[in-house]
Amino acid sequence: MTEWHTELAATLDEVWRRLAHGVADACAPARHPALATVGRDGGAEVRTVVLRAADRATARLDVHSDGAAGKIDEIRAEPRVCLHVWDPAGNLQLRLRATAEIVTGAAVAPLWAAVPTPARANYGGTPAPGTPIAAPDDHAARVDAARFAVVSCALREIETLHLGRDRHRRARFRADTDWRGTWLAP
Amino acid sequence: MTEWHTELAATLDEVWRRLAHGVADACAPARHPALATVGRDGGAEVRTVVLRAADRATARLDVHSDGAAGKIDEIRAEPRVCLHVWDPAGNLQLRLRATAEIVTGAAVAPLWAAVPTPARANYGGTPAPGTPIAAPDDHAARVDAARFAVVSCALREIETLHLGRDRHRRARFRADTDWRGTWLAP
Repeated sequence: MTEWHTELAATLDEVWRRLAHGVADACAPARHPALATVGRDGGAEVRTVVLRAADRATARLDVHSDGAAGKIDEIRAEPRVCLHVWDPAGNLQLRLRATAEIVTGAAVAPLWAAVPTPARANYGGTPAPGTPIAAPDDHAARVDAARFAVVSCALREIETLHLGRDRHRRARFRADTDWRGTWLAP
Repeated sequence: MTEWHTELAATLDEVWRRLAHGVADACAPARHPALATVGRDGGAEVRTVVLRAADRATARLDVHSDGAAGKIDEIRAEPRVCLHVWDPAGNLQLRLRATAEIVTGAAVAPLWAAVPTPARANYGGTPAPGTPIAAPDDHAARVDAARFAVVSCALREIETLHLGRDRHRRARFRADTDWRGTWLAP
């Protein structure tokens, strides 16, 4: 049997299989990508996020955020983000370059309706995320639908690195060539 | 007993304990941070790296790289990077903002001398990393000491997020206030 990591098309299939797994299974590696952004000072920023949707047909990944989180302002100023997943069982690194859009309000009301009640407290706490406070409990959760933001990431490029027993294989797939892949020197 | 995550000084101690563990133990979460940079096109980039040194006295973290890797040019153009570690056992996220310097040649000769012979093939392959190739084996490892680069990261800011059973605790420690910490709204 041919192994997926030896063929470009099979590698791309495996990426989407693992992303779908991340959405469905809270324990899958792709559940918690690291989302890199350009900070307001121009330097790099990165933090863990939760993958909420992955749609191959539209090449979109969704992450939810408190609209008052620093990453929202960062993405509004520079929408070119990069998501990163390291999947130890697959010996596979994913680097997912995307242009992100922040969607709030009526357009995401159906998604907000599907957020479980306890999880809604992640959207609206006071003071806003990142505000200095005197003690950890100087912060109150609060539910505010207006603070529910969907970070909708339109993928531009998927880069894979598979660490194989025989050799490392690196590949790149681009939206602008209809996701036809090319191998890259690792 | 007071738990470390409830006090600022103990939290910072725990950060350095986990970073030291990452250097010493190939299986520790801090062994493989995600390194975010600003790409040459101005968007964000992120990839896994291997943590090679962590020195609290100088607040420096070292990563080794092939000098021909894309991240080297990126860091030369914009040295403000961010390293990210998610430590599941500690329920702890680290975001480490640093100004990185690329060191090559005679200054890192003692470190190169300590790189095990098989690992030296990671520095010098042809063609250079990221070059499109027709097949995965159109790439030859080669040892080139001149391609050994140390990415020396001078920490400016350490940000922690601990996901506790009672509440989440977020803290920030800054070099310019001698690493005195402050709590932040999570």
